[in-house]
Formats: sequence, structure tokens, C-alpha cells
Amino acid sequence: MSPALIRSQQDQQSDPLEIKPLTIASILAQRFSETAVARDQAGGHAAIEREWIRESGLLTLSIPTEFGGQGADWPTVYHVIRILAQADSALAHVFAFHHLQLAGIELYGSAQQQRRLLTDTVEKRLFWGNALNPLDRRVIATANADGFTIDGIKSFSSGSVGSDWLTISAWDEASQSALIAVLPTVLDGIVVQPDWDGFGQRQTDSGNVHFTHVHLPNEWVLQTPAQVATPQATLRSQVAQLIMANLYIGIGLGAFEAARRYTKDQSKPWFASGVTAATDDPFIQHRYGELWLLLRPAIVLADHAAIALEKVFRKGALITARDRGEVAVAVAEAKCLAHRAGIEVSSQMFELTGARSTSARYGYDRFWRNVRVHTLHDPIDYKLRDLGRYALEGTLPEPTAYS
Amino acid sequence: MSPALIRSQQDQQSDPLEIKPLTIASILAQRFSETAVARDQAGGHAAIEREWIRESGLLTLSIPTEFGGQGADWPTVYHVIRILAQADSALAHVFAFHHLQLAGIELYGSAQQQRRLLTDTVEKRLFWGNALNPLDRRVIATANADGFTIDGIKSFSSGSVGSDWLTISAWDEASQSALIAVLPTVLDGIVVQPDWDGFGQRQTDSGNVHFTHVHLPNEWVLQTPAQVATPQATLRSQVAQLIMANLYIGIGLGAFEAARRYTKDQSKPWFASGVTAATDDPFIQHRYGELWLLLRPAIVLADHAAIALEKVFRKGALITARDRGEVAVAVAEAKCLAHRAGIEVSSQMFELTGARSTSARYGYDRFWRNVRVHTLHDPIDYKLRDLGRYALEGTLPEPTAYS
Amino acid sequence: MSPALIRSQQDQQSDPLEIKPLTIASILAQRFSETAVARDQAGGHAAIEREWIRESGLLTLSIPTEFGGQGADWPTVYHVIRILAQADSALAHVFAFHHLQLAGIELYGSAQQQRRLLTDTVEKRLFWGNALNPLDRRVIATANADGFTIDGIKSFSSGSVGSDWLTISAWDEASQSALIAVLPTVLDGIVVQPDWDGFGQRQTDSGNVHFTHVHLPNEWVLQTPAQVATPQATLRSQVAQLIMANLYIGIGLGAFEAARRYTKDQSKPWFASGVTAATDDPFIQHRYGELWLLLRPAIVLADHAAIALEKVFRKGALITARDRGEVAVAVAEAKCLAHRAGIEVSSQMFELTGARSTSARYGYDRFWRNVRVHTLHDPIDYKLRDLGRYALEGTLPEPTAYS
Amino acid sequence: MSPALIRSQQDQQSDPLEIKPLTIASILAQRFSETAVARDQAGGHAAIEREWIRESGLLTLSIPTEFGGQGADWPTVYHVIRILAQADSALAHVFAFHHLQLAGIELYGSAQQQRRLLTDTVEKRLFWGNALNPLDRRVIATANADGFTIDGIKSFSSGSVGSDWLTISAWDEASQSALIAVLPTVLDGIVVQPDWDGFGQRQTDSGNVHFTHVHLPNEWVLQTPAQVATPQATLRSQVAQLIMANLYIGIGLGAFEAARRYTKDQSKPWFASGVTAATDDPFIQHRYGELWLLLRPAIVLADHAAIALEKVFRKGALITARDRGEVAVAVAEAKCLAHRAGIEVSSQMFELTGARSTSARYGYDRFWRNVRVHTLHDPIDYKLRDLGRYALEGTLPEPTAYS
Repeated sequence: MSPALIRSQQDQQSDPLEIKPLTIASILAQRFSETAVARDQAGGHAAIEREWIRESGLLTLSIPTEFGGQGADWPTVYHVIRILAQADSALAHVFAFHHLQLAGIELYGSAQQQRRLLTDTVEKRLFWGNALNPLDRRVIATANADGFTIDGIKSFSSGSVGSDWLTISAWDEASQSALIAVLPTVLDGIVVQPDWDGFGQRQTDSGNVHFTHVHLPNEWVLQTPAQVATPQATLRSQVAQLIMANLYIGIGLGAFEAARRYTKDQSKPWFASGVTAATDDPFIQHRYGELWLLLRPAIVLADHAAIALEKVFRKGALITARDRGEVAVAVAEAKCLAHRAGIEVSSQMFELTGARSTSARYGYDRFWRNVRVHTLHDPIDYKLRDLGRYALEGTLPEPTAYS
Repeated sequence: MSPALIRSQQDQQSDPLEIKPLTIASILAQRFSETAVARDQAGGHAAIEREWIRESGLLTLSIPTEFGGQGADWPTVYHVIRILAQADSALAHVFAFHHLQLAGIELYGSAQQQRRLLTDTVEKRLFWGNALNPLDRRVIATANADGFTIDGIKSFSSGSVGSDWLTISAWDEASQSALIAVLPTVLDGIVVQPDWDGFGQRQTDSGNVHFTHVHLPNEWVLQTPAQVATPQATLRSQVAQLIMANLYIGIGLGAFEAARRYTKDQSKPWFASGVTAATDDPFIQHRYGELWLLLRPAIVLADHAAIALEKVFRKGALITARDRGEVAVAVAEAKCLAHRAGIEVSSQMFELTGARSTSARYGYDRFWRNVRVHTLHDPIDYKLRDLGRYALEGTLPEPTAYS
Repeated sequence: MSPALIRSQQDQQSDPLEIKPLTIASILAQRFSETAVARDQAGGHAAIEREWIRESGLLTLSIPTEFGGQGADWPTVYHVIRILAQADSALAHVFAFHHLQLAGIELYGSAQQQRRLLTDTVEKRLFWGNALNPLDRRVIATANADGFTIDGIKSFSSGSVGSDWLTISAWDEASQSALIAVLPTVLDGIVVQPDWDGFGQRQTDSGNVHFTHVHLPNEWVLQTPAQVATPQATLRSQVAQLIMANLYIGIGLGAFEAARRYTKDQSKPWFASGVTAATDDPFIQHRYGELWLLLRPAIVLADHAAIALEKVFRKGALITARDRGEVAVAVAEAKCLAHRAGIEVSSQMFELTGARSTSARYGYDRFWRNVRVHTLHDPIDYKLRDLGRYALEGTLPEPTAYS
Repeated sequence: MSPALIRSQQDQQSDPLEIKPLTIASILAQRFSETAVARDQAGGHAAIEREWIRESGLLTLSIPTEFGGQGADWPTVYHVIRILAQADSALAHVFAFHHLQLAGIELYGSAQQQRRLLTDTVEKRLFWGNALNPLDRRVIATANADGFTIDGIKSFSSGSVGSDWLTISAWDEASQSALIAVLPTVLDGIVVQPDWDGFGQRQTDSGNVHFTHVHLPNEWVLQTPAQVATPQATLRSQVAQLIMANLYIGIGLGAFEAARRYTKDQSKPWFASGVTAATDDPFIQHRYGELWLLLRPAIVLADHAAIALEKVFRKGALITARDRGEVAVAVAEAKCLAHRAGIEVSSQMFELTGARSTSARYGYDRFWRNVRVHTLHDPIDYKLRDLGRYALEGTLPEPTAYS
């Protein structure tokens, strides 16, 4: 690994207690990387790789120690996500979204729900998936005696294929609002249909989740229809947004490192350059400087945002709208920088490696395909608009599922 | 097709005599586009598609009428290349490199060679391929009684697979210089090994050409070893560079048009935009303006360069070093703009179409993959350096295989 | 002058008949440049310099030969503007706005008005100024027996100070619309107050024009209140917009040429560069290439737009909305490129010349100050939006005073 | 002040003990800003303003408490510089270079020199200037009995006009190397000639310092000729480089804040925008987001670099080449980002404020002029090259006066 990357990692490794999960993550990432090119080509369900993740013990990383988890702080969780994403951003996404669901339980759930669900996650080694896409309102909740009946289809459900439990949202016609709840994926009436065919992020286990007369008992409802979301609850979308940022950074770092090794080990100097090694070409050195200046600020601002998020997250029910808004600004800054760093590094890396590096056996195009697909989660222009409103008049971003 | 694209095409269609090849090209492009996504995924030899091209009659487009060809000028040939590249840039490359070989015969060959080879090309419907890569010196020419014996391997030979004739270069140890010649691909001792596995430009029929004791008679030698290249001869690399530029522009236009249709027909407005159609989103309109301002100058400067090239090309043996140099500047300007337009439009188009447009069934990532692979032909930084030297001190680019 | 700039000029000089005004313009520009730094610092009324322009004979350049003018086409007029702007963009603006007023008479005026006013302009050597700012509605027209009474103040009136005649707009309360007319500046009741204190374009002779009970006879009204503007009339704003584009390009070329000479004649190589002349520094060569790639497309597209404008302008009353709209697109493309080229070249030139070039005695900051002030005429974002709407759906720009 | 800026400041104000100098700096900055526009126009010696600085007590800010100073850490000193630069970057430069000279004494000087010179600086309220420009070798040191005789001229001597003491460098022909020393400005034989006539940074009190047979006693020599610079000594150029970065950021913040207030208080919405306040224009909001994303990373990375510098600075003689090199990387990252943020914000701010904001009475062009002049201290391309070499192979920047 390059000294520059090592330095970037060291910034966060000040606490020796936190080094262990990062070490485990590095080992897991190494395992991912051995088959990353082949799995990118094959796509399909990450059944085996989910077991690798489970075996690593990292599924309990973000769970508080009182429930048997490792109680890692968010900076550590995000750092793990970033390490995994350097090797395989699809698997890193599946891993990260598991922890997003757990964060949702901490942010929305009652004390009993937290205890029950998080303890179960530790004890039963559960893997969580997402079925929450708020822009898809086709899943309907109908109130019944002791809960709701759930019907409909939810698209873009990351990590749903092969999951044990799901977080879902469902639309309540009566109140014209959504409930949020959890359900075991194996329940009768729930069918997960793997339909993801994106040109990148091939193994995110994303699918359509079909619900047919599924009974949702009240005890599994995290937020009832018409319930006003607290600042604490709306922090969930910031946990998610910062996952995106760290996935983009991870992809950018992976691309940078692949290019760096290729330039050092395989690139030939251009005949008109007058130098004897590609690494001595002034234009190549200059371009590495430019790409590094895209990555480095994204890394540093993502770390700042993680620290800010951690501080606010731990305030629990005391989180104010201002707390939440300031985290949202920090996360938006990091996400915009990460978006651009990921796209640019993964596309421009080839100017530094040359024609032969486009051989399919290296699979270097996967970095761009992965980050290109993933950066479309929500439009960067509206994130920039939010930052502009903040910088101009101090307006905090409106709490939504994306801001 | 968008009014903007129509306008771009109209700029060149002023001469009604030239419309016919463009119409044929459009029909051929339509045929390409019907299977472009599937063929991008499958890769492999373009055997069937070469027949489509042959049937279109466009293989004789650039051949002077005195040899039975259509005698089209270079602006028309480049326009045809651009139209084909919008639909399939790999097949457009195969087509364009056929005409590059013919240009080589016009620029290097004797009157007899021109008459013989170009007439044969018309009459026997020959398809030409390239085996000229000047940076690969592994093919050796050894002088014998009435010519040379050729041995070795030539890599990156675009269009060699399935070709009838090849232009080759071979290294002469005695003179420490290269000869340039033509040979029938079917000759004993020539084996074309399809080895192209790039992540883009999948069907360029590029291969390694193996030569084993192949006899090259003098009559097929276009340029003997140690022969100093004339300004006329060195114009060939400018014909090639402007092919690149037009391929990049074609890809950019194809990506732009795909995005445009998707935004109009399928994109949903972002929930925070306050508009009811994606086409009314101010940020989307603005981005289309930005992308258009990348493409339009590339198109106009490529057209300028084609006119300049045409004028100089027709001077034949009277071409001066200054003529050649000024064409090289115009081509370099166009190629740099085309490089950037192609890369940026094919990568940024997704900001305008959104997450669902990354489905593999659209295959929209092929635009970026194709242009990313193809823009690595030679480094843009040295092209920019050449332009800088020219702008700063009037220095014309040194004639090389790339400048 | 650099070979690159010479080539740019040659593109337009194909017609030998047109070379004469360009030669005169070059001589006049040379005269401007001798005092440009001092006049930039002093600011104030360009009384003497207006006489230089008058003496050059170029005030009749755009006037049809039937009225005694030189009958130059728009490409020639714009080329003259660009040459003058390289030396002094404020005086070039005064000159250009004179011709804009004449264009207004041709586009809006009756046959009698054209004959009378244009003939007078030739015979009496009149210099025209502008008092038309459509966003300032403080000038009121009140109908009377044989015309209107004009009262109020018009701001941002370029070239009004020291002018002989003015084009004005005035608001008619009754019809809630504006009239457009001409008036001699010397009329009783008209006072031109020089109030321009911008940090650039110091000598544009811009002022507030105060009207106090000024009688405007009907014969001087070019467009009456409530009269619907024809496509021909609305072409005036495109004449104006393309003036802007050429002024920006002229400034960019002036900055580029100043930098080029400085780098060649005065810059020292950076100690870490390993070269013995700044012109051999690869980073400097590369940057000149980049800046040239900003200027060159702006020049070529401005030339294209001028040709398109010329063709439509000559159709007179037969101009259709589509004709006008297509010119507007071509002009918008050129103006956006020119805007960026001007701003970037004038700011980045210093990376190429170094610290000592910031001495006030060179006055090189005037390029940025001039183009920065002038590019705020109307916002580039709305121009990009218009181009995006066109590229996306073929929508032509709405005819306004700015589009 | 905008909430965004307040947040940026709060990041560093965690330690309440450090708030006091920042408060004093804010008050001093307010005093600067009242006359900043007028002084930018007048230029000249900052005699009065130096007294304001002296009165503020901030001249002892970086001096260790053991010598009677305030013992502030580098993050605090840089923060003060940034606050002052928002109001007046020329005076901030004079202030910062005073502390650079003091840092030089700490890094180069013996224990006695430190005690003597720093104590005197506190007690006699000395103001230090610079005469060290290493690229100007016209000042010659000739060894004599108890020191050296100094003769020659030193250019680009920031803060020399009106200073009490100077740090100087002088070339020793015998050893072909430079000595570094201190001298009272008032000494016979030293004449400071104010010759600065840059178009920006008008009041930096920069001059040519003329030395005529000046006696330099050994006790004032910080580094003798031929003495190999220790890693500690070479840290001085990093103190200087980070001063530059913070000056650029200060200018960028000043420009941003000026634009922000103007947009809020004075800008009118564009007629085609469809909104009733400029602050509601989506393009304006978006641009503020973009500019903020230039400034914010520069701020955060400058803060990181200051913390890294502080940590290494305090290691004194134990500083290793690696320590020094890693600081140099962090500083280079910050400086490149600050360079771009300063240039871009100060030039693009006008797209957000419009034509009327270019009135000379606002003096808003001073931000660009100041940062444009100051960013030419050393070429950004070589800084990017250094970062590229580091990112590519881990090579630390070679210790020079600029890296």
C-alpha cells in the first residue's frame, strides 16, 4: 500500500482498541479481492461471501456492548466499510446496509425493540437487509386487530436477497403516511426476487421484495403511521448518506491503488517523454498529484463527518434539529467530494496506466462501473443546492430520506 | 434525433452530392444499433457485420474515381465514421481503419501500387486491416533476392481478424529503420490470432499477427528501409489521428442522444425539484447545456480539421512540412476536444438519467467503456504539450506515428 | 503575433476585399495599445480616443453602401471588434455599440428612417451611444400631439458620454410596454452624467442619461408602444450578444499574447524544473496548450455564429422566428465559450508568467478586470440553461433583450 | 458572519484558552476592514497599521512563554493570520512574516540567540521583516575577523519597510553556499527602498534592501556558510508555506463573505429566473454550494497541516527528515487547495453578485488581485508534482526554500 494511503488510514487509528476491527477488515478485504474480478463478471447472489462476512464477526461491530455487540463507534464502522469497498464495493454495501438497519433500530426503536432485535442479531448471527425505499409507495399497510397487513412490492431493496431480517416501509392510506417496521425475511408471504441487473455493484443482493398478506404485529413496528419523525429518527438518512460517501471513497482508493501499482510495475514510458520510467514522467507525476487532491479531502471530510455523526448519535433522544442539521451539512460536504473523487479517479486512472491496462483480465473498469452506479442514489445537484443554501443563509437541510 | 444533432450534421451536408453516403451510413448505423448492446456483451469477431459493411458499398468510399471508387473527400469519410460510431464505435473503427490503409497506399505507394491495389480493392471488394503498430518492433524484415523475409509478431493489429489484406511495418536491423508494406492476410505463414480482450471496443477485430518466413516481394513494399519519410507520407498519422477524434465524437454523440431520449421518455423528476417533468428541472437543463458545450466545439473543430486535411492531402507530392504541420495542429485541437467530450459525456450522462438507467439491458455503460479504451491510443498530455509549443513559439508538431 | 493567432485571423481573411478594414483596425489597435495601461489607470471620458476611431473611418463600416457606408458584413465587423479589444476592450466596446445602434436602425427602422439616419451618420460623422437598458424602466414616455414627452433616468448607458445620437427605450404606462426611438444627445433636456466607476472597462463612456421634458417626434420612433416585435427586430439582441462574445475573445487573446511574450522574453525557469528556459518547462507548455484549447473553440464558434447572423440579417423582413432562434443558439454557444475563455485565460496567464509580471507597470491585471466586469452583462447560467433546453428538446431561446 | 464560516472557526476554538487571541484578531480585523478599500487603492507604507498590530499585542503571540511571549501554538497563530487576511491580506502578510522570522530564530538559532532575540522582541516590541529571498543571490557575505561584511541588494523583502529587525541570507562565494543571519534594520549601511508596485497585496511593505559594507557579527549568524541544514532548520520553509495557504484561505473567505452579503442584501433576481429573491435562484444556490466545496476542504486540510506542523515543531532538534517530510506533504496538500479556492472564489464571486457589484466603491476586485499576486510565490505545478511523487512512490518532498 502506498505511504499516502497508509497515512490516510493512520489518521483514524489513534486508538489502539480500534485497530482490531480494521485488521479484521483488511483480512476480509484481501479475501474479497482475490475473486473480485471474477465475481464482478459473474454477478449473482453473494451467498458464499455473506458467510465470509458472518465468520469475520464484523456483523456485530456497531451493536452496543450491552446487547453483546462490539460497541464500535461510527468512525470505526465507516473505516471498515471503506477498507472493504477498496476490495469489493458491492459486498461492502451489503455489509454497510446491515449496519444501517441496526442503526435504524437504535434510532427508531423502543428500548424493548432494541434489546430484543439487537440481542437476537448477536446471538443468532442475523444478517439484515433493506426494503425501505421511500420513493416506492407500492407497499400498502392495512391496520388490523393487533398490527397491520402488508401487501405490495418494494424495489431497490439492497441486501434483501439472502437476508434474515428486513427493515421495511409501507404506506398507510388512511393517514397518508408511511410506517417503518422490521420483519423476518423468511416469513410466509414474503418473496425476494433477485432482479438487480445494473452494470455495476453487481453483487449487492438487491431485489424486489413481494409482500402478500403478510401480518405485521405491532411489536415489530418501529414508527407508526402519522407518527412525526423525531430529529433522532431522521438521523438514519445521514447514517445512510455517510455510508455512500465511504463506499465512493473506498472505490476511489481501490482505483488509485490499482493504477499506482500498474504505473510502477507495468507502464512503459511514452516514447516522446524522454524519461526511462513512467514514474518519472512529469505529466504522470502531476496527474497523480491531481487525483490525490481529489481523494485526500474526501477522506478527511468523511472522517470529520463521522466524528460529528458519532457525537450526535450518542445523544439519543436528546438530539435536536440543529444537531441533526449540522451533521447533515458535514455529511453532504463529504458525500459531494467523495462522489467526484470516485468518478474522476476511476475514469482518469487510465490516463496513467495506458492502453494495455484495459485488458479484461485486470477488470479495472469495475471501479468506474461500481461508483457510477452507486453515485446515482440521489442527485448531487440537490446536495450542492443544500450546501449552497446553508453557506448562503445558514439554512439546514430539510430532513428527508436523502438529506 | 435532436435538433441540435441535426444542425451539427447539416453543417456538412451543404453539398447534395455528398448526402448519399451519409444516408447509406445512417441506414448501416441503424442496422448496427439494433444489436449493439448484445454484441458489446458477446464481443468476438465481427464476421457478419463486416459483410453488412461490404454490402453497403462504403468500402470504396475514399477510393479515387479513377480507380473505380466513389472519390469522397475526407470530410465526407469522417462524417460517415462519426455516424457509424454513434451506433457502434468498434465497427466504425474497423471501417475507418480500412480507409486508413487505403490512405496509406495513396500517400506512400507508387503510381503502379496505387492503381493495382486500389483497383483490386474495388473489384475484389477487399477489406483491409492494420499490422503497423510502430511501437512494437518484434517483426523483422530480412532482405532477400527480390524482397524481404518477414518474421515475428505484431500486436494491437486493429481489423486484422477477418481482413483480406494488411498494411504491415517490419524492422530492418541493417538500417535500424522500418519498412512499410502490404500483404494478403491469407498468405502462408501469416496467422492472425484474435487476442483482444479489452473492456471496450469489443469487436474491433484486433489481434496479434504472427509472421513465419513470409516472403514479401518488392512490389508490395510501400516504403523501403532507411527511406526518409516525405511530408506526404507522414500525413498518414494525421489521417489516423482524425479518425480517432471522429470516433470519440461519435461515441459522445451516441451517449448524448441515448441520455436525451431517456431523460425525455423515462426519467422521473426528483422529488425535491418542484417540477413535474425531468426535462423542466433547471439543473438537468443546465447540465445538458454543459455537455452540449463539450460536444459542439469538438464537432466544429473536427470539421475544420477535415477540411484542412482534405486540402493538403490533395496536394500529393507537393505537400510541404509546413502544410503537414498545420494540419497536425488542427487535428490535435480536434482530438483533445473530442477526447474530453467523449469521456465526459459518456460518464456524466448518468447524472441526467438516474439510477434506473444503469440496468444492463440498456448497456449505456458501453459508451464510456468504448471511449475510455480508445482514448488511450496515445497520451493526451503530449498532444496538449504539442499544442502549447505551437501556441507559445509556433513550433509545429514533430512528425511521428502519433503527432 | 504568435503563429497560432495569425492562423486564427487567417481563417476569416479569405476574401481580400475584407482585409482593408482589418488592416485599419490593426493600426488603430496599435495606437490604442500604446496608452492602454495608462488609460486603464486614469479612466474617464474617451474624448480623444473617440476622435481616433472617427478618423479611422471605421464608424461607417457596417453601414450599407447605398447609404454611403462601407457595407461590411458582420463577420468583418466582429473581426474588427475583436482586433480592437485585444488592445483596449473599453474602446472596442464603444466602437461596437456604435454599430449596434446602427444595426438597430436597420432592424427596427422604416425605409425613411434608415435612409435619413444612416446617411446622416456617414455625412456628419456621427457617433452613436446606447440608452436602451430594458431592465431599467425609469424613463417614461407620455404621448402628445405629434409624438411623446420623455422623462426619467436611464442607467448603464454605454457610449452615451460624448455621443452624437442615442438609441433610447422608454416605458409607456398606458400600454404597459416600451417604445424604442432615437434622439440627438445634444437636445435640450438631455443630460448625460458620467457615473461609471467599475473596476474594469474603465473608458466605456457609460453613464446615466437624464431626460427632462424631452420632446420625441414620431419620426424618431423606431418601435411604438404595444407594437409586437418582429423576428427581425428581435435580432438586435443577438447582434449585441455576439459583440459581447467577441469582446471577451479579444480580451482573452490580448491576455494570451501578453503572457506568451512575457514567458518568451522575461520568464526565468523555475529552479526545480531542470530546464534552462521557461519555454522548455513541460508544465508551462502544457498550460499553454490548455489555454489555447479554451480560446480556439471560442474563436471558431464565434466565427460560425457571425456567418449565421450575417445570412439571417440580410433576409430583412423575411426573417422567421426559427431563423432568429437558430442564430440565437449559435451566438449563445459562442458567448458561453468566450466568457470562459476570457475569464480563465486572463486569470491563469499569471501561472505562466510568475510573480514579477504582477508589477503595476505592465498592467496585466486589466485583462481580468475588463472581462470580469463585462461578462456580468447577463448571467451565463441562463445561457447554459437555454442551450440545454435546445439540446434536450429543440426549444429555441425565447427572444428577449438577452437571449 | 455566515453559519458556515462560524462553524469553520469553531472547529479550532475547542480550547477556551485559545479564544482570546482569536477575539483580539477579530477586533483588529474589523479595524483593518474599515479602511481596506481605501488603502488598497492608495497602497504605500503601512506605518499606522503596523502600530495597530503592535498595540494589539499579537506580535508576541508565537513567542514561547519562557521568553515573555504568549506561547500560542501554530494552529492558533495560523488561525489569527486567516482572520486578519479576511479583512486585509497585505497586513496579514506583514504580521505573518514577523512570526515567520521568529520561527526562524527558534528553528535555526542557538539557545542564546533565541533567548536574546525573542526576549528583546517582547521587551522592545520589535517588528520583524524578511530579507531572505533565496533565489536572489546578489547579497554577498565576506568573512572578516569576527563575522562578515555584507554587500548587495535583496529583492522581494516582505515587511522590510518599517521593520526593526531583519532576517537575511547572503551568499558566501568561498563555500558556494548561503548564510542566514539577523540584523537591525536601522544599522548604518542598510537602506530599505520601497519598490513594491504589484497590482495586489499593495501594503506588504515589501522592498529592496540595500547593504553597503554592513558588519555582521558572528553572534547574529543563525546558520554559517556550508553548514548543512538540519531537518529542524528546513522546517522553516514549511512554516512559510502554511502562512501562504492561510493567507489564500483568508482571502477566499473574505471574498465569499462579501459575495454572500451582497447576494442577500443587494442582488436582484434575474428576470428570467422566476423567483423573487436572488437567494432563491437555484443556480445561485448551486454555485454557492460549489464555492463552499472549494473553501471548506482547504480550511480543514490547513487545520490538519497546522496540527501536524505544531507536533513536529515542538520536537526541536529531534525532528527527523521523515517528520519534516510528512509535514511538507500535509502543507502542500493544504496549499494547493487554498491556492485554487482563493483564485476561484475571488473570480467566480461576481457570477453571484452581478454587474453592479463591480463598482469601484466596493473594491471587490481586490480579493482576486491580492490572491492572484500572492499565489505566484512558487508554482503550483511543482507542488502538484511533489504530491504526485509522494502519492505514487512515497517520495517525500526535497527540502528547499519552497517545498
